[in-house]
Amino acid sequence: MSSHLSKQFDLELEGIRTRVLQMGGLVERQLMAAIDAFSTGNIEAMQEVVRTDAEVDAYEVGIDEDCTLLIARRQPAACDLRLVMAISRIVTDLERSGDKAAKIANKSRKLHRVSGQRIPRLSDLHHCGGLVTAMLQGALDSLARMDVDAARQVIKADKEIDAAFNSILRQLVTYMMEDPRTIGEALDIIWIAKAIERVGDHATNIAENVIYTVSGIDVRHTGSAARKAEKA
Amino acid sequence: MSSHLSKQFDLELEGIRTRVLQMGGLVERQLMAAIDAFSTGNIEAMQEVVRTDAEVDAYEVGIDEDCTLLIARRQPAACDLRLVMAISRIVTDLERSGDKAAKIANKSRKLHRVSGQRIPRLSDLHHCGGLVTAMLQGALDSLARMDVDAARQVIKADKEIDAAFNSILRQLVTYMMEDPRTIGEALDIIWIAKAIERVGDHATNIAENVIYTVSGIDVRHTGSAARKAEKA
Repeated sequence: MSSHLSKQFDLELEGIRTRVLQMGGLVERQLMAAIDAFSTGNIEAMQEVVRTDAEVDAYEVGIDEDCTLLIARRQPAACDLRLVMAISRIVTDLERSGDKAAKIANKSRKLHRVSGQRIPRLSDLHHCGGLVTAMLQGALDSLARMDVDAARQVIKADKEIDAAFNSILRQLVTYMMEDPRTIGEALDIIWIAKAIERVGDHATNIAENVIYTVSGIDVRHTGSAARKAEKA
Repeated sequence: MSSHLSKQFDLELEGIRTRVLQMGGLVERQLMAAIDAFSTGNIEAMQEVVRTDAEVDAYEVGIDEDCTLLIARRQPAACDLRLVMAISRIVTDLERSGDKAAKIANKSRKLHRVSGQRIPRLSDLHHCGGLVTAMLQGALDSLARMDVDAARQVIKADKEIDAAFNSILRQLVTYMMEDPRTIGEALDIIWIAKAIERVGDHATNIAENVIYTVSGIDVRHTGSAARKAEKA
């Protein structure tokens, strides 16, 4: 690539990366708002999260399109190309995380509407939501700074989320066993917990893509058999 | 692109597409085997599905790498590039579908090991698994033939899966309500049903990517607000 082309590429890439980080910031706020609304029962906030999901979707479509155009026009070399491909994957994970925030908001609304609230709004779930939000933040920071160590921290943190999720599940099973009338409500809370846990998976995917971009090493399935067996 | 370069590109692209279809065939077989093993309780088959997941992962890493190399070396024009980007996304969805097959197998094994089987192995779940396998097949066929109509059929079928999933959920809630001792077992079956339902989502994503590639229209979020609200 000539230095002129290369400079153009860098400029456009920087623009794309800025927007990915903006998109990530939006998803983070959506997630926090959804988790707070679950705890507080703020219906207006739940509706706002669901509405704003369209914005997250628009970011995904726009950034994807720009990635394709950037590659077609600037024909980047392998290592730059790797970054653009990784960004395209990261954007998918961010969009799915946004879906999970909307799901948490939707389920919270249903819970509030239907049930007489037999199960207290578990503080563990709120805590787990905080952990996952921090993971997503960490993943985005690692992307902003292209920081492999930070990315590795994010991947490590996913174990904590899985443990927290299993603990929430056990608590909910206890409620259900003690009073079968709580089953419907408990299941809705389980779906919320599951959505939170899956954002942890998406943050992990993002961190893996950062490592791949910087080091060229695909860590997506290293030791994955063991990790998957644990998660299953 | 010169005609020589273009021919090289076509050849290599064809090679990648063939491998995506092979990978898809493997995932399809994994899914069928996992669902059958859930119904029959065949432990050996469950273990085989879990073991074979590493093969699916290897396909993903290899095909992704080849997509990046193909773009870097052949510098395809926008419409060819779109196809390669779509393939890269499709491969992710296939890999995640393979994960779901492994999850179904793992949960089935746990069910078999732990429980005295208070809940019969719902035939509805087996039926739903068949529908999803057909969807995945349809999505891969639409990719093989670049057939937009076939892809649209796949997207339509996802509604059926969601309905089947909700019906399974209602049945399981009934079991839990009637006999709280079934709660643990019911939850494991719920995770299996959820894994099946999510393969339907992945098949939908694949079909959407086929439409995007052929028509250049990104249908991922058209009417998505309504669809997501339904699913939530």
